[in-house]
Amino acid sequence: MNSNVINDLLNYNNIKIIQNKDMFAFSLDSVLLANFVKINLRTKNILDIGTGNAPIPLILSTKTKASITGVEIQQDVFELAKQSIEINNKINQIKIINEDINILYKKIPSDYYDIITCNPPFFKINENNKKGNSIYKQIARHEIKLNLEQLMIISKKILKNNASINIVHRPNRLLDIIFEMKKNNIEPKRIQFIYPKIDSEANMILIEGIKNGNSGLIVEPPLYVHEEDGKYTKEILKIFQMG
Amino acid sequence: MNSNVINDLLNYNNIKIIQNKDMFAFSLDSVLLANFVKINLRTKNILDIGTGNAPIPLILSTKTKASITGVEIQQDVFELAKQSIEINNKINQIKIINEDINILYKKIPSDYYDIITCNPPFFKINENNKKGNSIYKQIARHEIKLNLEQLMIISKKILKNNASINIVHRPNRLLDIIFEMKKNNIEPKRIQFIYPKIDSEANMILIEGIKNGNSGLIVEPPLYVHEEDGKYTKEILKIFQMG
Repeated sequence: MNSNVINDLLNYNNIKIIQNKDMFAFSLDSVLLANFVKINLRTKNILDIGTGNAPIPLILSTKTKASITGVEIQQDVFELAKQSIEINNKINQIKIINEDINILYKKIPSDYYDIITCNPPFFKINENNKKGNSIYKQIARHEIKLNLEQLMIISKKILKNNASINIVHRPNRLLDIIFEMKKNNIEPKRIQFIYPKIDSEANMILIEGIKNGNSGLIVEPPLYVHEEDGKYTKEILKIFQMG
Repeated sequence: MNSNVINDLLNYNNIKIIQNKDMFAFSLDSVLLANFVKINLRTKNILDIGTGNAPIPLILSTKTKASITGVEIQQDVFELAKQSIEINNKINQIKIINEDINILYKKIPSDYYDIITCNPPFFKINENNKKGNSIYKQIARHEIKLNLEQLMIISKKILKNNASINIVHRPNRLLDIIFEMKKNNIEPKRIQFIYPKIDSEANMILIEGIKNGNSGLIVEPPLYVHEEDGKYTKEILKIFQMG
């Protein structure tokens, strides 16, 4: 574990996230997703599926007193996440479980969670394969252990009525996401498109689905990541609490 | 017809559009849709469904030599459209037909059109009803004579393979549009969101579907209509060819 790095770029109440470059670095995706989620005072239980080194639970813990659970299928990654929770003194609020969500969810009561978050694998199993990627990265990036269909079936069962599943993904999967949500009576209610810079196509989407929600979609103001000179935009720096 | 007004706001080669306030004014929607459509040198036949006073055919005629047909169900509106075509000396390129597209399309050969455009009624039949609106406006704004399902069934038949249907609509109907497209093997390929100003939710969408197209969605850069001081943005003025 010598190559682990404590990353304190995030300034959310000085949260530190332990990263191992051979596994993967937490990324902007997770920060944007945590920022997108709507939490309120009635939010009691939050589940982050495929939590990695737990950036989403850690960021959310600065915004809510709710109980947060992260599920991570890979044991080595799970160990990193646990260390991150300990270093940040969040063991009373955040629980990390090392299990396959496809098995775990059967043990979770129906209608239990107020919020689910997930930064899922972006690629289909045989899509965009790069040789030499570690198994850690492959599982995190490809739909080997979890695909959108499974994610929505799971969410349908364990979300409370009118509770939300929030995911970050690529625009080219938007139609699949909508399709799998609708199939499971999860109504896409809010979308935000992320553009790397002005005049570029969107390269990321954030989407909120509501279990048994009414129809009616809101498209949030767009978010640009970089200025034309390559610097982060004010909006992004604000999200990182560095603006 | 004394209340007719020749509107020459559009500076596309000095196109003039005859409007009658009791019917409806052409609007930004149509200009943005005409700007969104991808035309190329092989484009031979274009159909504009629900053409109103023909703003879309007139704008497109400045961008292509293709033959353009506008269909308008309402006879009085059709008469205005015809006058607009005559005033602009476009009778050789643009043909306006006074018929219900639900009947007309059965007489059109399959796989005929390269491009369909449509600025359809935005509201469901009983949605957002305002008393006192003329029947002209009601038919133009409510799905009385044409709904999304009919539009996609028609498009499926009369579009060539890999040809496009392009529509402008409200974001809250995006899921319906996608659903009706997919049901008819029309693949949503390109979307653009229009925001009235910075930090506002989108209030308009432009979407291109391709008959029998491959999957893979592109989200175009967003378009803002107004600056914070209420003026049109540079992008909008450029589209109006006034920038």
